[in-house]
Amino acid sequence: MGSEINLESLKGTYDRYSEEWATWSYLIDVVEETAEEFGFKEIDPPSIERQELWTQKEEDSVTDEMYAFTDKGDNEITLVPEQTPTRARLIQKRKDLKTPVKWFNTSKRWRYEDVTQGRDREFLQTDFDVFGVESVNADAEVIAAAATIYQKLGLEDRVKFLVNDRKLLESILESHGIEDTEEAMKVVDDKEKMDGSEFLDDLQDRGLTESEAVKVDELTDISGPILENIEELREKSPKDAQQSVDRLESLGKALDAYGVADMCRFDLSIVRGLAYYTGLVFEAFDSEGELRALFGGGRYDNLVGEYGDREVSAVGFAFGYSTTIELLKKADKYPLKQAETDVYILTVSESLRDLAIEYAEELRDKGVSVETDLAGRGFGSQLEYADSMNAENVLILGERDLENGEVTLKHMDSGDEEKVADEEVIDRLENELTD
Amino acid sequence: MGSEINLESLKGTYDRYSEEWATWSYLIDVVEETAEEFGFKEIDPPSIERQELWTQKEEDSVTDEMYAFTDKGDNEITLVPEQTPTRARLIQKRKDLKTPVKWFNTSKRWRYEDVTQGRDREFLQTDFDVFGVESVNADAEVIAAAATIYQKLGLEDRVKFLVNDRKLLESILESHGIEDTEEAMKVVDDKEKMDGSEFLDDLQDRGLTESEAVKVDELTDISGPILENIEELREKSPKDAQQSVDRLESLGKALDAYGVADMCRFDLSIVRGLAYYTGLVFEAFDSEGELRALFGGGRYDNLVGEYGDREVSAVGFAFGYSTTIELLKKADKYPLKQAETDVYILTVSESLRDLAIEYAEELRDKGVSVETDLAGRGFGSQLEYADSMNAENVLILGERDLENGEVTLKHMDSGDEEKVADEEVIDRLENELTD
Repeated sequence: MGSEINLESLKGTYDRYSEEWATWSYLIDVVEETAEEFGFKEIDPPSIERQELWTQKEEDSVTDEMYAFTDKGDNEITLVPEQTPTRARLIQKRKDLKTPVKWFNTSKRWRYEDVTQGRDREFLQTDFDVFGVESVNADAEVIAAAATIYQKLGLEDRVKFLVNDRKLLESILESHGIEDTEEAMKVVDDKEKMDGSEFLDDLQDRGLTESEAVKVDELTDISGPILENIEELREKSPKDAQQSVDRLESLGKALDAYGVADMCRFDLSIVRGLAYYTGLVFEAFDSEGELRALFGGGRYDNLVGEYGDREVSAVGFAFGYSTTIELLKKADKYPLKQAETDVYILTVSESLRDLAIEYAEELRDKGVSVETDLAGRGFGSQLEYADSMNAENVLILGERDLENGEVTLKHMDSGDEEKVADEEVIDRLENELTD
Repeated sequence: MGSEINLESLKGTYDRYSEEWATWSYLIDVVEETAEEFGFKEIDPPSIERQELWTQKEEDSVTDEMYAFTDKGDNEITLVPEQTPTRARLIQKRKDLKTPVKWFNTSKRWRYEDVTQGRDREFLQTDFDVFGVESVNADAEVIAAAATIYQKLGLEDRVKFLVNDRKLLESILESHGIEDTEEAMKVVDDKEKMDGSEFLDDLQDRGLTESEAVKVDELTDISGPILENIEELREKSPKDAQQSVDRLESLGKALDAYGVADMCRFDLSIVRGLAYYTGLVFEAFDSEGELRALFGGGRYDNLVGEYGDREVSAVGFAFGYSTTIELLKKADKYPLKQAETDVYILTVSESLRDLAIEYAEELRDKGVSVETDLAGRGFGSQLEYADSMNAENVLILGERDLENGEVTLKHMDSGDEEKVADEEVIDRLENELTD
């Protein structure tokens, strides 16, 4: 019977054993600590929801990829493919919440799509959102929070944020006589994947004249440090767009104040596929790779209002773990952490087990991770196990040592052993491990 | 359109906002820290699996309650209702793992069942398991880890662990001439819910004679501190069961060494419904409530072997969060923690925003949680917001103060305000907050 069972996880889902998970867990800690430092508060919404949260809203490829089914109570439900509609529901449900509302949550989401590197069917994200603030200060704050994560990972020189404002792009396109800005923006969204003539052809296919297409091509080539591009943008922008240029300038200055301006570049070709973005859009990229998106975000001021009678502006992003883990590997920063045990207590004979428990409990009370011999094994196999667990220290309890009031401490990295007075060993280990 | 959306979460799933989640999150930290102190390593298995992991194994009520469906690739999948079969799969898949393998994982699981207090459709658990150790040391270790969680919560006088060994019960029943021990044990499992005559009737309905039923009733009344009951058990147990009595005695002694014996009671009527338990079974109860189970666990030495060609013994439990949160409320220990911000930086005018960011970033670098005014609000509404966020301190930046090289620090608990030199305020806050 046993042999019939398929031992592999479902395609696009992963069995993360402790060696691998240690780095993921460390990365989650970095992301969540950053969220807390920026004053985001943790929430915990459900992982299953009514399908209507997605299907009743604007059409999107997301609904085609949902793990949607009918539950035993005949409810049309889905595993959440992303958290934004849930957050909109939560905002609408609690009229008493004081804005700004700043939320984060780390959880799995599910989409049935083709599995490629960085695109899984079950995937972990941390959503950051600021609700109820129209000011550019909130735009800067979310980018700063995202950039801080990569600063903490020592990747501030490698990760860049490409930043744009969809309102600005739209009004520049309009001012150049382009009527169907939405169609033009769809083409711009794919610009990076096309060569120059393809791009021009595609725009003309969508109804632009050749000279309009050339203009769009020129404009969407504008990129560089935000504040250095402001003057060019102001010149090329119509009166209607001056407010967007001012906002972009304020964003550049604010990012400077946060100390993350060097990680950000303006790029008028960044659109982000999702139709619900209304202003700021940004994407984090590996600047040394093939400019692959690590994740993206932006401002969506209209979406929350579609879920109830309260209009609430919003800006945020969903941090991507599997792409960042891939980046850490490429940047030789993987693993961030190893699964390990601080102290393994090796008992030379089974009769010393109670003493081993006593030492173990004293150390655990101080927050030290401790393992003891549960299986009644010999010296050699205990040491082998301690090594396989990446034990930092092995505390060896033997009768003869103990008669002399001593124990042996073995440092596994160096292999050094030393005798320590039995009464001092707990303090000694605590000091070494918490330094 | 907005008004059509149902704003409530699905029945049996919960929207946990930050005020509520702060306690859950703190409790998760306590549980996971304890796991790490005991040398359990974190893994992260999928939340969706093939249905066959449950349906191909022994029949159980679990399979009737699964959120099971067919995915877009025609796979018969399910949201995981519990993690044991997944863990069995993971153990079978990795032949290289050195035992003991000690794993923990905190995640949601789903069962479509009647929603009652402490029984949700989407629920959080932390699974602790020790694989590959037959020794009673592992039994003691998992109970000690579970008990330590309640010690840390200050509930060591309130939570009790009822402990039994199914092998012992089985051989005692057999020695008293009861042939169908499995049927008898099913009745024993429900004993607590029945009065005395119901219990006797039920046993007789299952084929026991009246005198056999009376014997079972007497035997399953044996309960009390483990070591105090050993002699009575040894007398009443047949030769075959002496090994189980010895094992129970060793368990009692080990629990004493771990300092948790006072929290444990032997109870020969504890069976635990799940058929897969093979030895130790235990349940954590609120001793001051209606003896409701907080969660349970035990030894299951045969289950892993059903998933592959490797026989691996196992003992563990799944910590229950919603029951423990209910207990914290009853014990006046709720909330364990409030959602709060360490410092709110209040800016008297918008022109001070860059300075506010500078202070904020310095504090965040030191791990302090800081919010600033993102919305350009006035003094009063900033202070109101800071209060609603449970800000511990408000750092007020005003032009006049700054001209004198000063800022104002307001402690929100006491309402006290004081002037502090602007150069000293960061160190001052850091020291206060990290003390």
